[in-house]
Amino acid sequence: MLYLIGIGLSDPEDVTVRGLELIRSSARVFLDAYTSILSVGKDRLEEFYGRPVELADRDLVEQGDVILAAAQSADVSFLVVGDPLGATTHADLAMRARQRGVAYRVVHNASVLTAVASCGLQLYTFGETVSVPFWDAVSRPSSFLDKLLGNWERNLHTLCLLDIRVREPTMESLLRGRPEFEPPRFMSCSVAAEQLLALLAEVSAAEDNADLLADSDAAELRNRLNRRKQLPPPERLLTVGLARLGSPDERIAACSLADMASRDLGPPLHSLVVPAPRLHPVEAEFLRQFADTEADAALVDASAAER
Amino acid sequence: MLYLIGIGLSDPEDVTVRGLELIRSSARVFLDAYTSILSVGKDRLEEFYGRPVELADRDLVEQGDVILAAAQSADVSFLVVGDPLGATTHADLAMRARQRGVAYRVVHNASVLTAVASCGLQLYTFGETVSVPFWDAVSRPSSFLDKLLGNWERNLHTLCLLDIRVREPTMESLLRGRPEFEPPRFMSCSVAAEQLLALLAEVSAAEDNADLLADSDAAELRNRLNRRKQLPPPERLLTVGLARLGSPDERIAACSLADMASRDLGPPLHSLVVPAPRLHPVEAEFLRQFADTEADAALVDASAAER
Repeated sequence: MLYLIGIGLSDPEDVTVRGLELIRSSARVFLDAYTSILSVGKDRLEEFYGRPVELADRDLVEQGDVILAAAQSADVSFLVVGDPLGATTHADLAMRARQRGVAYRVVHNASVLTAVASCGLQLYTFGETVSVPFWDAVSRPSSFLDKLLGNWERNLHTLCLLDIRVREPTMESLLRGRPEFEPPRFMSCSVAAEQLLALLAEVSAAEDNADLLADSDAAELRNRLNRRKQLPPPERLLTVGLARLGSPDERIAACSLADMASRDLGPPLHSLVVPAPRLHPVEAEFLRQFADTEADAALVDASAAER
Repeated sequence: MLYLIGIGLSDPEDVTVRGLELIRSSARVFLDAYTSILSVGKDRLEEFYGRPVELADRDLVEQGDVILAAAQSADVSFLVVGDPLGATTHADLAMRARQRGVAYRVVHNASVLTAVASCGLQLYTFGETVSVPFWDAVSRPSSFLDKLLGNWERNLHTLCLLDIRVREPTMESLLRGRPEFEPPRFMSCSVAAEQLLALLAEVSAAEDNADLLADSDAAELRNRLNRRKQLPPPERLLTVGLARLGSPDERIAACSLADMASRDLGPPLHSLVVPAPRLHPVEAEFLRQFADTEADAALVDASAAER
């Protein structure tokens, strides 16, 4: 039997009682070590579980043979931070288990997708979740802005999941053919805010040069600009930063997008929320406790008042 | 200190290790007994926790005085099925705690909002969640259909949370002024499907009588009809029923809306999903395992093929 066990958001004690029992009675215990990451290391997990934990990288999970072969003859636990089927890769693992005649069972747990309610915004008024990827020299994906605007137009909140890069091979090691890894990187709310600011600025700058574009490109640009203009300027666009949700040193901050780019919310993991333009009064009242300054509080109040 | 503790989806063992420790060290333990319900009773919880559990009805929670007074001088646990801040009422309790100078802390857990991924649909492509309320002689709310169509147009899945009526006073007891309660009622997937079918049929019937309506009503009706026409007929509209998610006798069924109205998925709790019109191939492949008949499987395949 293959148990897909969610281990929650931050500490070893976040596993469920059922999950812990299954881990302790499994022949082997694997930990997904690349789609997400706990704020604690493997050592603390092993100590708490009283079992050795094998780190599973992308190759091991996506090929799946080691895990599935083990699960064919014994109970195997595959541990996932958050809830187990949040990432497509794990649905894929469950599917391949089934194809090989290995039964699987899911043990659910908390996920950032619901823990985000800690900021006081109602889960029922969140729209589509978006992912904000790290930009680099060759790639600056921006489709998350279009999805965010789609939610905004319908007065829905947007949860932005921020990029995580774990076990990325270095360029040198790829050339040498012997894998060495970059240190793990986690996008902070300030970096996400910077990318969003850059994107909004770029679209504005492009407007000035629209005459130079082919007609079809210009039409698309005008369309994006018109949608973008619904957003208030960055100094008046409310955002909520969430850091280390569910842990004792959880930190939540409500401030403008412009300010978020320079807020330090401490160590990972971070998530960013762009609330709907008009908040329910209860949402605004709850969110206000996370406003650090008078200006932040005024911004929250304005979102409620515009209802 | 007030601990808002999620106890997960179905069994006593679904509490987290941290949650269990806090419950056992609390002076009093309250259980939210009206926004949701575990499939097990208070007795099994008390046995498992080794602590007496006090049922908190809506009045007790919304006034909050008993709970907050207790939390002012000692540790108090307030238990909520699923994740603690999913329902507005609990955000309200946390806010009033804070106003009275009582610190609160949230212990997260699994929620149907993420456990729904067990059917294989990706959480990132769910739109706004909707609630389907029981209809009665005086009220037939239908706004959930408009939200569902909004998701459908954007190729997003819709999770429909189905109504729960716990501790509803009987009409007779209201007249006598002494509260007696109706037996708890839980909406099944088949009842939700019936209401949805009725709603779609009503809109069609109304079309024939549009000439009789005032101009403004007729315009609104035409608008609703046009949006509704995007949906395939009920025999070809794929739906997914989910029953007792996370428990050992979990049941998931993928079939047409027309068929769902006569499927018996067993005891509560149920949730219904209307998948987006075009599924990712991995989603369709996963979902196919929950198709009971050839016709069901063909319907799932068609959703993938239309991509």
